[in-house]
Amino acid sequence: MMRLGVLGGGQLGRMLLQKAADYPLHVHVLDPDPEAPCRPLCSHFVCGDFRDAPTVEAFAKGCDTLTIEIENVSLPALQRLHEKGLRIIPEPEALEHITDKGLQKQLYQRLGLPTAPFVLAETATEARKAAEEGFVFQKLRRSGYDGYGVRDLSQEPTPLEGPSVMEQKIRRAAELAVMAARDAHGRVVTYPAVEMVFHPQVHRLQYQICPCGLDPQVEQQARQMAAALIESLRITGILAVEFILDQEGRLWVNECAPRPHNSGHHTIEAFDISQFDMLLRIALGLPIREPLMRSPSAMVNILGAPQASGIPDYESFLLMVTREQVFVHVYGKARVKPLRKMGHITLLHPDSHILRKKAAEWSEKAYIQALPDN
Amino acid sequence: MMRLGVLGGGQLGRMLLQKAADYPLHVHVLDPDPEAPCRPLCSHFVCGDFRDAPTVEAFAKGCDTLTIEIENVSLPALQRLHEKGLRIIPEPEALEHITDKGLQKQLYQRLGLPTAPFVLAETATEARKAAEEGFVFQKLRRSGYDGYGVRDLSQEPTPLEGPSVMEQKIRRAAELAVMAARDAHGRVVTYPAVEMVFHPQVHRLQYQICPCGLDPQVEQQARQMAAALIESLRITGILAVEFILDQEGRLWVNECAPRPHNSGHHTIEAFDISQFDMLLRIALGLPIREPLMRSPSAMVNILGAPQASGIPDYESFLLMVTREQVFVHVYGKARVKPLRKMGHITLLHPDSHILRKKAAEWSEKAYIQALPDN
Repeated sequence: MMRLGVLGGGQLGRMLLQKAADYPLHVHVLDPDPEAPCRPLCSHFVCGDFRDAPTVEAFAKGCDTLTIEIENVSLPALQRLHEKGLRIIPEPEALEHITDKGLQKQLYQRLGLPTAPFVLAETATEARKAAEEGFVFQKLRRSGYDGYGVRDLSQEPTPLEGPSVMEQKIRRAAELAVMAARDAHGRVVTYPAVEMVFHPQVHRLQYQICPCGLDPQVEQQARQMAAALIESLRITGILAVEFILDQEGRLWVNECAPRPHNSGHHTIEAFDISQFDMLLRIALGLPIREPLMRSPSAMVNILGAPQASGIPDYESFLLMVTREQVFVHVYGKARVKPLRKMGHITLLHPDSHILRKKAAEWSEKAYIQALPDN
Repeated sequence: MMRLGVLGGGQLGRMLLQKAADYPLHVHVLDPDPEAPCRPLCSHFVCGDFRDAPTVEAFAKGCDTLTIEIENVSLPALQRLHEKGLRIIPEPEALEHITDKGLQKQLYQRLGLPTAPFVLAETATEARKAAEEGFVFQKLRRSGYDGYGVRDLSQEPTPLEGPSVMEQKIRRAAELAVMAARDAHGRVVTYPAVEMVFHPQVHRLQYQICPCGLDPQVEQQARQMAAALIESLRITGILAVEFILDQEGRLWVNECAPRPHNSGHHTIEAFDISQFDMLLRIALGLPIREPLMRSPSAMVNILGAPQASGIPDYESFLLMVTREQVFVHVYGKARVKPLRKMGHITLLHPDSHILRKKAAEWSEKAYIQALPDN
């Protein structure tokens, strides 16, 4: 049986492992956290730093194929392993272009994909200067994800330290994401676009909905761009591409991630092939096909309550949620922190108005509290 | 987080573990096979015999709740643990009535549930005598499952050795199964009945289909009987009840199993709450609700090919199956044997005629071959 190594052991890896059990696969996981969500679900867990080259190279010895569930892994290790002939999903060359947001932007430019105008800044001083010229939106070139390492200098004038991409702000009408997949034979498929709906008061995802409620032509365009991007990068694997739709109806590529992605959680219930299944089929060398939508769906993150810190009170949340017709995924984290992603729920309904209404309602109550200290 | 112990580490446990990862749970598994399908997917695996009382009692020390995925576990151990206050799903008293097929038949009789007329035989001599009186169908009182330990003495006159139930043969028109569930608050729900369709030539399950194609009144009756049975047994947990429908349209309870069951595999994709999810909700002490059918479905077992013995050739099977719109579950067994259950596929389609046709077709090709020796 194939031994698949995964760099990173978080919730994305955990959902990958849940699906991997449907295939003849041994899955090995590398993560620095001894309590990583993947630990109890894999054949073999190595506690170590995936950013450290020797650690990654030692870990890879036991694997036939390597993949990632987080981008900031040791690229030099992956490059050496790839040269030695190890299958790596996605290929290190593509990963190199993606993990550095400066190279990522230059790639979009080179491919002729529309992306917000930008300049690169080496230092905070250069960033401040770029902001004065209208490039007010700062993204650290090498940063985390989920809104870390970004700053809007028109709101908060002190720049972050470090090399960054300085972008002009696009006047957003909506945000979309498309998941693309490409198998070892070069066949590309895309999932229908997801619309990310943000909370009107706080800048935070309220829910995601699929299909998106936008002009079918816009959606088609987004899917074509995602397909073009995965083709150009020659990635074997999956690629989540995020777009901004501006107030004039134009699409802009925002960023991409060559791994399972939060914007694809709904695919577990809403498609016959989930994003995790798609990645596993590619890892197994199987030819892929168009995923079939089983139902319109919405996804709401379950977050740590704004004041919650400590041992999570899962019970009262589960009591509420299991009464309703929703699909629950609690990631089993041992501690809750304010706004930490603790899980997600998926709603299915044929009517998109009802879906939106229900999703907005759930977003008000999808919080995990902490148990009282005693 | 709750620590749930599972006695038995086969494919049913494996599918339970896949779902358990959606809840805040640590799952511990006890199985004598160091290569048990559950091993790579649980927090804690103990290699040991679940039929051995001291082993079970030692294993239980680390658990808050204990459940089973196979019936022939140490009942004395469960009884002692239950007396000491450990939560056990199902309760040992119910298990006692089910693991002995003689007690099981007497229970149906006592509850007034229709079941094939029977006598009990202690020895092969008594069995032969019973057969002469028309009770030709022999079932060992304590035996395995899936057709082991049963013999039709009208076909093969030498009885099996050991205490057995001797039944009159029912002239079957169809076979059904109903999954019932009962939570800690006493609420009972049932799933729609499944029809088991047998191959016209070989006596082997060809496919299962849900909803069953039978008279709605018959189905309702089967669901009511399953509900009555789980109520009477006062089981906290789930109970699969198998029925025979005779040629006069009457239902007979055939047997039952207080655990996840082959007849409930389709619930993973076809219902919003699968049989595994239902059991987990009960284990977590959550109130249960009616499961919602998402689509009509059929289930086909993937078997070892009749001559196959050795290392399974999963690749050629997966190449065939992933092209089609089916949901595949390969249990990841390291060796294939003739007719061994290697996995299953689930088909979804709104039209039951198409489902039946496709399921029958799949049953002709859902075989795993062995790789050539070399």
